[in-house]
Amino acid sequence: MIPNVQTKMMEEARAQASFESKKMAEVIHGRHVTTLPTLDRHNAAFQRVEKALGATDNMKLPPIYGSMNREELLLDGFKAGKVVYEDGVDNNCDVFEYITHHGMLANASPFGLMRFLFIPPIKLLGTDAQVAEWVPLAESGKIIGSYAQTELGHGTQVRGIETTATFDRDADEFVIHSPTLSSTKYWPGALGCASTHTLLMASMIIDGKNLEDFKLLPGIELGDIGMKMAYNGTDNGYAIFDHVRIPRTNLLMRHCQVSRDGRYAASPLRQKLAFGGMLSGRAIIIRAATFQTLSQLPSACSKDNANTRFWSLELAQALTIATRYSVVRQQGTLSQPDEPTAIIAYKHQHFRLLSLIAKSYTSLLAWKSANDAFLDLKSRQERGDHSTLPYLHMLTCGLKAWSTQTAADGAEEARKMCGGHGYLAMSGIPGIVTSVTATCTFEGENFVMWGQVAKYLLKGFDAAELPADMEYMGEYETVIEDEEICCAEGQELLAHDTLGEIFQYRAATLAREVYSGVKASEATGMSRIEAENEHALQLHVAARAHIELFILHESIKQLNRLPASTPDTIKTIVGRLISLFALTTIASPLSAYSSSFLEHGYINSSHLKDMRQHIDDLLEVLLPDAVALTDAWSFSDASLASALGCRDGDVYNRLLTWTRQLPINVEAAKNGGVIKTGWEENIRPFLTRDLPHLVIKARL
Amino acid sequence: MIPNVQTKMMEEARAQASFESKKMAEVIHGRHVTTLPTLDRHNAAFQRVEKALGATDNMKLPPIYGSMNREELLLDGFKAGKVVYEDGVDNNCDVFEYITHHGMLANASPFGLMRFLFIPPIKLLGTDAQVAEWVPLAESGKIIGSYAQTELGHGTQVRGIETTATFDRDADEFVIHSPTLSSTKYWPGALGCASTHTLLMASMIIDGKNLEDFKLLPGIELGDIGMKMAYNGTDNGYAIFDHVRIPRTNLLMRHCQVSRDGRYAASPLRQKLAFGGMLSGRAIIIRAATFQTLSQLPSACSKDNANTRFWSLELAQALTIATRYSVVRQQGTLSQPDEPTAIIAYKHQHFRLLSLIAKSYTSLLAWKSANDAFLDLKSRQERGDHSTLPYLHMLTCGLKAWSTQTAADGAEEARKMCGGHGYLAMSGIPGIVTSVTATCTFEGENFVMWGQVAKYLLKGFDAAELPADMEYMGEYETVIEDEEICCAEGQELLAHDTLGEIFQYRAATLAREVYSGVKASEATGMSRIEAENEHALQLHVAARAHIELFILHESIKQLNRLPASTPDTIKTIVGRLISLFALTTIASPLSAYSSSFLEHGYINSSHLKDMRQHIDDLLEVLLPDAVALTDAWSFSDASLASALGCRDGDVYNRLLTWTRQLPINVEAAKNGGVIKTGWEENIRPFLTRDLPHLVIKARL
Repeated sequence: MIPNVQTKMMEEARAQASFESKKMAEVIHGRHVTTLPTLDRHNAAFQRVEKALGATDNMKLPPIYGSMNREELLLDGFKAGKVVYEDGVDNNCDVFEYITHHGMLANASPFGLMRFLFIPPIKLLGTDAQVAEWVPLAESGKIIGSYAQTELGHGTQVRGIETTATFDRDADEFVIHSPTLSSTKYWPGALGCASTHTLLMASMIIDGKNLEDFKLLPGIELGDIGMKMAYNGTDNGYAIFDHVRIPRTNLLMRHCQVSRDGRYAASPLRQKLAFGGMLSGRAIIIRAATFQTLSQLPSACSKDNANTRFWSLELAQALTIATRYSVVRQQGTLSQPDEPTAIIAYKHQHFRLLSLIAKSYTSLLAWKSANDAFLDLKSRQERGDHSTLPYLHMLTCGLKAWSTQTAADGAEEARKMCGGHGYLAMSGIPGIVTSVTATCTFEGENFVMWGQVAKYLLKGFDAAELPADMEYMGEYETVIEDEEICCAEGQELLAHDTLGEIFQYRAATLAREVYSGVKASEATGMSRIEAENEHALQLHVAARAHIELFILHESIKQLNRLPASTPDTIKTIVGRLISLFALTTIASPLSAYSSSFLEHGYINSSHLKDMRQHIDDLLEVLLPDAVALTDAWSFSDASLASALGCRDGDVYNRLLTWTRQLPINVEAAKNGGVIKTGWEENIRPFLTRDLPHLVIKARL
Repeated sequence: MIPNVQTKMMEEARAQASFESKKMAEVIHGRHVTTLPTLDRHNAAFQRVEKALGATDNMKLPPIYGSMNREELLLDGFKAGKVVYEDGVDNNCDVFEYITHHGMLANASPFGLMRFLFIPPIKLLGTDAQVAEWVPLAESGKIIGSYAQTELGHGTQVRGIETTATFDRDADEFVIHSPTLSSTKYWPGALGCASTHTLLMASMIIDGKNLEDFKLLPGIELGDIGMKMAYNGTDNGYAIFDHVRIPRTNLLMRHCQVSRDGRYAASPLRQKLAFGGMLSGRAIIIRAATFQTLSQLPSACSKDNANTRFWSLELAQALTIATRYSVVRQQGTLSQPDEPTAIIAYKHQHFRLLSLIAKSYTSLLAWKSANDAFLDLKSRQERGDHSTLPYLHMLTCGLKAWSTQTAADGAEEARKMCGGHGYLAMSGIPGIVTSVTATCTFEGENFVMWGQVAKYLLKGFDAAELPADMEYMGEYETVIEDEEICCAEGQELLAHDTLGEIFQYRAATLAREVYSGVKASEATGMSRIEAENEHALQLHVAARAHIELFILHESIKQLNRLPASTPDTIKTIVGRLISLFALTTIASPLSAYSSSFLEHGYINSSHLKDMRQHIDDLLEVLLPDAVALTDAWSFSDASLASALGCRDGDVYNRLLTWTRQLPINVEAAKNGGVIKTGWEENIRPFLTRDLPHLVIKARL
């Protein structure tokens, strides 16, 4: 590469860092958590797959940006999915179990639901014989599985499902049928054409279709549901069943059985696990929510043996691109009229980049605590102890909602930070924005998720004793609103403990206040469900406050638990990022929900003034580390697929090089440099048509 | 159409309205503003164009959702653009001057910049002879014009432009040249292939290319810049010039001339109009900003003769779709376990829909005042009076930033309100979200726009006397922060006047506070520009507060100016929408920036409690009107192109009907119902390959 203005600016920006990004990468990628794949193993897997996909030359236009229609996008997804799955099988490698080669959630690939929503339910719900029959076939990629739950008229709420599975005693079969328009299965990933087998949610879970010839069973209408905002490399599909017959024994029968003569029996364990709905559906939704939660945090994940590892780093990817672009893009000037200024020097850019980077790092640390709690639940459940299930349900719902919204908003902000060029598909950010925003509504719409957290809080107050995670609220029982003022000031407002107390005060006050509101509504004769709806917005904010407190508390805890071998500079920087996260959450008027810190008068304008000074100071001291903080996430150029975000900073050169490789321009080059698409047929006749009255007018 | 559950729910929801939506449509579409096209004229134009495009059958899949690659999307844009432009020429109709047939900004079409950025600068900058030569050709569609300003390394900031236009005295020509990589023209709409002529920004404005054969002049490399988040029906392009020669006389010479012997002369008027930069560039940017501002408001626009009418209603479109879907989509239940609930009944959905509808209506009214001010400026400028230019510059920058962000965030919120189905291209919302979000960064990135407002405020304080729009700030000169508390309570907090005072207090306090901060920084030796950057975030919030005050004040003013013939129910409902806008801006913790109302203690938790009660009451009383409020915007089914948002509410039927028409499924139908794209070539061999070790494992 010939160095140019931009690559030199990138080099200089990178050289300013106060720490070694590799050391931070080890913190992120879990060098210190022994169950994690090491950074090297992670990098090696990406390199293998990128080589197999021919994606290693970062001056070569990624085909996805070329000229693909629905079929071609899907074919590209098939091909890449196959390469990635094969890599996993051939190398016994788990790096891509839950992510694609672009770091997107695995369900962006037709192969992606296998380890996510196909194999786990079979293991959970299938008999030993069923597990032995299906799991090895799925794990080795001899079948492709999907998970058919969502219907045209029904989302993640299992209760509404209309598809029927009627047992025919004479034939010893279930008859699968779509009795109404709205019972059409609609949305399941890989259902459009890729999957050979599906887990079908009807009144029971059924394993369908025929293995031998990969042909559809008679009576099934099935297809693709077309273009989506993103995820177009997979075939989200629809299916309509017209009395389709499958053997009775295809019902997954570990916890419930239908006997040869049609008697239904469920084991007690099933009842225990199934709080409020069907065991399998709810369990899978919880798990899925967990996946989503964790997947949105820019984090590596500790591994357990039942598929709780995931790795989707879309916010971090968007921030990597925006940060790298911001140090080489020049616009206007701040002081010397003739000295163009890199846009990262503009305060709003500087603030937005670093406050989002701080969110990413903080939530990564907090995620580790959530994962520990999840692993603890699993080992308890194996001993028959389901006591922490409600807590985990609340936590995963809340973290899912918080992290997906944070990632979606943050990625779009990163898009805006790249100005016009960020709007171009080749910048890589539109694909991130449009895919990550899907997670706000799928696997549990976020407002519904917050409602689950709120329900938990209300139940916590209802109980004789506050649950452990709500104990802190007991301290604020006697608080009379508007009478207490935070007594910290100046430097104290920078301390993690003080910030934690402020988060705690807010969460407790909001929760107590809305609980009184709900009780008052109930006293007028409303049901709990009606009262919850009446106070839905206040409950939403209280739920958020409880989750943000968790994120702050646990990130501080995880910082303190970093191994002694972690360099002090790394600890210092992580500590600063946590402070910046907390301070901007409270004191930035740009932050949604920040008014909830102020409304009871606990924080006043004098606190805000001090806090904003701290924010300014932190921004200043973190600025030289911006590039290194994003380098530490260790994204390969190929996985970013961004003309603006490659490591070398050579943005204009790459943008133009890729532009020239666009098929539409390559075709034009063959045609004397003129793009002809539709021009000759449509535009020339238009321009050259006779318009007598206008020609006359023109001559006047 | 056979009525079904969904269409009946829609009918019932529509029947609940307390007013006639046609009457509201007349308010929106300017029946009372004589210079506007009437609702009927507007509707007739849409019908003509939709008929010509074959888009009138709302059970027919819009081709855009089918299977289009880059070339096909562009061709679709060509065809539609041609039909729309022809309709304008043939019927002497101005309805589509600034919008497409989908209500998007006209620059989404290759023909769209003609009346937006091509004809106006020629009229402004060309000599009489030049205007007579080029304008009739452009107006009649005998040429297609584009506007080539943006470069690879430079956005809307004209100062950075690197393309050179060197006068060659001997040849009497300008030599156009791209001296560097970053001088590549990159982004101009229709530059990729559609335009026959371009206005080129170099050091002067040049009109280039050759008319006769529509072939490129030698020495120009030019092409498409590929897929964008949206706007894929037009050919944003790039161009590199290698010493391309054009006649000297192609320079637009009304206000500045280059003589035969190379002497440069500029008229005094040019200097007057050119504050801070090049006349044309800045003037066009201001105008463009205005366009954007106004275009984002869901509004009709009064017409003047120089292209200040526009009509882009993307937020309103997204809300129409989301509202219609919300009254027919059922999910869960609120009270009767067996009675499914329409999702609009859920408080968060109800709140989000109506608060966004309120924003749309309020900003529509405020826009009318802005337009009046703009028309006033134009008539002043014709008399040589440029005194209101700084005010208009500030106002259009601020409204541009506010309305584009509001529209982008609101459209994405509408997308989320449609759950999973909203993520599907066929829902129509992804196209709206991805196109409207472009406006946040194009024609002036929003943070830069807010900076312009802030600069104006600071200058206002610097001046001996506050400018008229800042006079209210004088009233708060002696306010000592944290000592004053709003004295209104209960019902008073519902009054428009009280709400106006609260907005005023906030705007004045924030502006005064940050002005002191800037002065203090200057006192330490910083330049103004450095001090502005230091306080950029506080300035940003103060600027926003000033603009939101304008929106509230002016919408109230416009409500009071509605003609006497307006039915009282209409006035009442508009009044309620304004109150809801103001109250949710202050008191909803979900609103970004709401903390800025609280930080000085003027509003406390007791005010918030009262306000939130008012919000709940308004939501309750406005609920039955939700469908009618969106009907009043009068979008045709074809222009919405949404399977979820057609007027009849027949969502599931239409979704499935369109899905079956997707080319990928039509192809599959020919193949026995199985989609074959890539499956046979890629997936079957993968599934059927030999994997001895795994097969053995499976047999264990």
